[in-house]
Amino acid sequence: MTHKIAILGASGYTGAELIRLIAGHPDMEIVALSGERKAGMTIAEVFPHLRHMTNLPTLCRIDEIDFSDVDLCFCALPHKTSQEVIRDLPATLKIVDLSADFRLRDPAAYKKWYGNDHAALAQQDEAVYGLTEFYRDQIKGARLVAGTGCNAATGQFALRPLISAGVIGLDDIILDMKCAVSGAGRSLKENLLHAELSEGYNAYAIGGTHRHLGEFDQEFSALAGRPVKVQFTPHLMPVNRGILATTYVSGDAQAIYDTFTAAYADEPFISVLPFGTGPSTHDVRGSNFVHIGVTGDRIEGRAIVIVALDNLTKGSSGQALQNANLMLGIEETTALMMAPLFP
Amino acid sequence: MTHKIAILGASGYTGAELIRLIAGHPDMEIVALSGERKAGMTIAEVFPHLRHMTNLPTLCRIDEIDFSDVDLCFCALPHKTSQEVIRDLPATLKIVDLSADFRLRDPAAYKKWYGNDHAALAQQDEAVYGLTEFYRDQIKGARLVAGTGCNAATGQFALRPLISAGVIGLDDIILDMKCAVSGAGRSLKENLLHAELSEGYNAYAIGGTHRHLGEFDQEFSALAGRPVKVQFTPHLMPVNRGILATTYVSGDAQAIYDTFTAAYADEPFISVLPFGTGPSTHDVRGSNFVHIGVTGDRIEGRAIVIVALDNLTKGSSGQALQNANLMLGIEETTALMMAPLFP
Amino acid sequence: MTHKIAILGASGYTGAELIRLIAGHPDMEIVALSGERKAGMTIAEVFPHLRHMTNLPTLCRIDEIDFSDVDLCFCALPHKTSQEVIRDLPATLKIVDLSADFRLRDPAAYKKWYGNDHAALAQQDEAVYGLTEFYRDQIKGARLVAGTGCNAATGQFALRPLISAGVIGLDDIILDMKCAVSGAGRSLKENLLHAELSEGYNAYAIGGTHRHLGEFDQEFSALAGRPVKVQFTPHLMPVNRGILATTYVSGDAQAIYDTFTAAYADEPFISVLPFGTGPSTHDVRGSNFVHIGVTGDRIEGRAIVIVALDNLTKGSSGQALQNANLMLGIEETTALMMAPLFP
Amino acid sequence: MTHKIAILGASGYTGAELIRLIAGHPDMEIVALSGERKAGMTIAEVFPHLRHMTNLPTLCRIDEIDFSDVDLCFCALPHKTSQEVIRDLPATLKIVDLSADFRLRDPAAYKKWYGNDHAALAQQDEAVYGLTEFYRDQIKGARLVAGTGCNAATGQFALRPLISAGVIGLDDIILDMKCAVSGAGRSLKENLLHAELSEGYNAYAIGGTHRHLGEFDQEFSALAGRPVKVQFTPHLMPVNRGILATTYVSGDAQAIYDTFTAAYADEPFISVLPFGTGPSTHDVRGSNFVHIGVTGDRIEGRAIVIVALDNLTKGSSGQALQNANLMLGIEETTALMMAPLFP
Repeated sequence: MTHKIAILGASGYTGAELIRLIAGHPDMEIVALSGERKAGMTIAEVFPHLRHMTNLPTLCRIDEIDFSDVDLCFCALPHKTSQEVIRDLPATLKIVDLSADFRLRDPAAYKKWYGNDHAALAQQDEAVYGLTEFYRDQIKGARLVAGTGCNAATGQFALRPLISAGVIGLDDIILDMKCAVSGAGRSLKENLLHAELSEGYNAYAIGGTHRHLGEFDQEFSALAGRPVKVQFTPHLMPVNRGILATTYVSGDAQAIYDTFTAAYADEPFISVLPFGTGPSTHDVRGSNFVHIGVTGDRIEGRAIVIVALDNLTKGSSGQALQNANLMLGIEETTALMMAPLFP
Repeated sequence: MTHKIAILGASGYTGAELIRLIAGHPDMEIVALSGERKAGMTIAEVFPHLRHMTNLPTLCRIDEIDFSDVDLCFCALPHKTSQEVIRDLPATLKIVDLSADFRLRDPAAYKKWYGNDHAALAQQDEAVYGLTEFYRDQIKGARLVAGTGCNAATGQFALRPLISAGVIGLDDIILDMKCAVSGAGRSLKENLLHAELSEGYNAYAIGGTHRHLGEFDQEFSALAGRPVKVQFTPHLMPVNRGILATTYVSGDAQAIYDTFTAAYADEPFISVLPFGTGPSTHDVRGSNFVHIGVTGDRIEGRAIVIVALDNLTKGSSGQALQNANLMLGIEETTALMMAPLFP
Repeated sequence: MTHKIAILGASGYTGAELIRLIAGHPDMEIVALSGERKAGMTIAEVFPHLRHMTNLPTLCRIDEIDFSDVDLCFCALPHKTSQEVIRDLPATLKIVDLSADFRLRDPAAYKKWYGNDHAALAQQDEAVYGLTEFYRDQIKGARLVAGTGCNAATGQFALRPLISAGVIGLDDIILDMKCAVSGAGRSLKENLLHAELSEGYNAYAIGGTHRHLGEFDQEFSALAGRPVKVQFTPHLMPVNRGILATTYVSGDAQAIYDTFTAAYADEPFISVLPFGTGPSTHDVRGSNFVHIGVTGDRIEGRAIVIVALDNLTKGSSGQALQNANLMLGIEETTALMMAPLFP
Repeated sequence: MTHKIAILGASGYTGAELIRLIAGHPDMEIVALSGERKAGMTIAEVFPHLRHMTNLPTLCRIDEIDFSDVDLCFCALPHKTSQEVIRDLPATLKIVDLSADFRLRDPAAYKKWYGNDHAALAQQDEAVYGLTEFYRDQIKGARLVAGTGCNAATGQFALRPLISAGVIGLDDIILDMKCAVSGAGRSLKENLLHAELSEGYNAYAIGGTHRHLGEFDQEFSALAGRPVKVQFTPHLMPVNRGILATTYVSGDAQAIYDTFTAAYADEPFISVLPFGTGPSTHDVRGSNFVHIGVTGDRIEGRAIVIVALDNLTKGSSGQALQNANLMLGIEETTALMMAPLFP
């Protein structure tokens, strides 16, 4: 059975990544692609790398889509826009949202991190958090799934099992994150120009101001049953894909390692490396895989957990497709087992 | 039916690319991987980006492989080594060779460009040139197919239809080629270090000394029925994948364009762009697609033909798999329709 | 004696490069920096890499500058704006313009390539073309010098001596140019984003539409005493600095080589490499040097001339300072002999 | 007065950087360049980017140098080799060593981190640690100065004033370091190839095994008057120059900031950014400058200190020249005030 798929916001990077992945999906067919400013253009005009996909619909405005013909809709719109659009979509339509709009369950937390009142409180209440490996059962039955932040996903792969198992201290967790530029989207900003970004790097949102902290606070505190606040410093890297989270924790490295191997033993996309080795973003590029390494520090009782994934795939569009597979009753890994691109 | 596949020389870039592609192939199973210096290592140790492929055999020496169990063997060995190995393989084994050893039909031409006497003349005589789109019928029935050089493939996509159709002059053809570094393989040379290569570029093998000229001479002269010598200058680019051939020819640009659209109309991997536009290596990265653009110059009677492809995929391992599909009676495009990776 | 310098348009890349170079100049002092949209900002705010230069003036609007206090003014404004500004500057002020506005002597040629009528015909008539090595004497006495296009400079270093000496054919010259992205300036365009540009490359302005052709036509035709039209295809490279011109000509390679060694024997910034070798943009990065290589092709009577320079330095701001030195009676190489940055 | 300079190990990156810097030095003249494997080659053959320096001596073997003619010798040799060479140099020759051999004062510490017994104990005892800003007086009178590790320098700029002032906790210091590839030198290793390094990144020497920890332990413990052990994780970045140290400390951010502004008030190369902002390696590239930023975390009592410098300049050869200036009685900043290269 072929499921009919719409992608709203198809002209951005996560939209293009969804199309790339779904192109290899035996049970999905893209029937609508929206792009407000690029409505009327073919996908070959918007993304020449997809020009061989001659069966794709031309981009249209959202209000031109007949959603009665759609089984599942991916929403790759900017946050704030997303909630307004989703609020007005048919109440029975299955939706995977890639924006930040439905990640935070508490409207006050949403307002704190994003600045505006939430415009779709009913949908916010209904939404299931989309970190597949930890919300699988809820996602299977969900109508609306909120894709996680790419940094938020990476940090949670590093910390959730450890917090759940109680093998690390909760008051001195540090997430030093190195993030590829595609995470910033296709926006025209001076610091995203090749001439400004290549050949160097820097931290940003220093001191605990990055919005993905809202997700960390929500999820880690819920897991721990008490408030947990991590330190999180993202860095902008001169590469296009990849996130590397270097996580500093207190705890026994071997216990941490054993916790991971147990927690992720049956996960098709998560690979725990041999003890004492670390992952590289080179090795997950373009794929839905997550590599995790654990090393004990020379300082007793301290350990380093490093997680690598591709921000556009496992950190965003790959995760979204994984969730969509679950929501539609399709085998979870379908169209997601492609190998990373190296070199 | 599942065909059993061996890959000799699996620890190089073209070997890794073969594994990446075959991993998605429904009708192939890798039963042997050789790597003389890395024999005994798992693929996860040699290529961490392939560590999720837990079913792959451990690397072994060639003499450890039982070829009676193999349906088709990819040979990704260095040239000269390749001919010695292939000479001694079972005479009935289907082989796709990725080296330079069987590209040139004339032993004298081989010696001129590669310096040594050919050690497997019988096999050289038997080999079919592996430029799929132009040797499809012979490849279907071949036992031994010689993969083309990556530059040689690119240049031939730009020129073969034009020479055949007689729409360009034959005495003033210039191929200015921009080549990604993975074409040089995994060799430890100073000029291939990141610190030496990134942030700049240069020509090499200037003046007509690059060995892929042997292929151009052989093929273009055969097509034209007279000697054809092109000028060819390769440039080493600070990127990992991609070849862009900027081809300067005399002829009518519209006639050239029409020749391409006719010649490539039914080719699943070749896309002729709208007249007057040019391709980008960004748009074919990691894929088996070829993009071709034609533009007329302001100087009457002069045209520019630009071809972009991924040197590791369509220029090497993707081409090899395409040929293997044909040799095994599998649909030609199987496992090769994945979209390019962008960004 | 210290000369007082103003830089108009100081917030772009060529402005920053001028400041970098002049910072090491013993006989120049920057007294005014303009930037209309960034007026009121310090240089440290606009260019954090220059924050150690605490003596620099704050950016201002052009109409705030007292030009009676200025000995020489660099104009790094966009074309069209530049002519309007320069027209209204004091008629005795020495000016080095880095825009395209005064490069073409013929108002009709200007209109053909830039689309608008020239708004400062008197100044256009007065301007001296700023290719230092070939206009040195006129530049010494000039009031207004028009900096060349960066591609135009590169191509002329490759071809002027050869056209003058009559050692190459004039009807089959091809300039295949590989250009760093900083040549496009600090403009917010999608194709200049890191995510879109890095990891690949493409030709642009294919077929003879690049505006620097106006300079080639003007200069080469004047040298030859007859119309000369070259083919010129620029390519956008994923690096920040550097131009490499691969030039295909007919002629005797040795005669070409001898012509270069004679023509450039006394030039402090131009280096002719050993015969048969080619330059690399890696080796001129951040410097005012030009490297030239000549190689004979395997096709008799054909030669390849390759020129490498840094588009922001020798191709623009370094050239401008070299000219300013001459105009002010300062030793020509002052503040310009810094070594390239490698790696 | 012109001082005569020798550079041993001139064919590596730090050697080339020394030549680049000294080329602009009014009081130094290079009289000898050694390179054992490249003896007999000109600098233009070894480093084409230095080919304009036609006055440089040809590379020679160390035993060919007449050190009686040398005022100061830079030693850019591999560690272990360096101590054997320096042991046998004239006892009165001023030396700046760039290797690791004389950084650690304790022979046992040396053996622990480097594995071998020290072969030049007398010289080890005599050597002054070369972190200029903190050892300035001793360096002025030193005969042998040991250049610091590039990571070690970066981390000490971030932490020395804070430890001295007692404004941070000593038991929970974390240095997350992002290091450019040129720090690994010109060595032919697979992971340093462009195809393996570009487009991604990873941690290495995880868990406290990097040798620069020997310097951190020695220096921080001496400052604190008690053992201090930091956590230090270096990451290999796909860029050629730059180190960014993201330092996590406990303490009051404002007190930390005030400590820095006081400590570095008179330092010509160190710039403390406005409170709450962070530096970028883009802004120090190719220069001897250090940028430091301090931000308070959302978690009370936690602060982030970020330091950026160029590993080859301030982290190695620039530091070496700064020290040599002091040792020779030359103004400390001579030939070191060049602006960074951006873009």
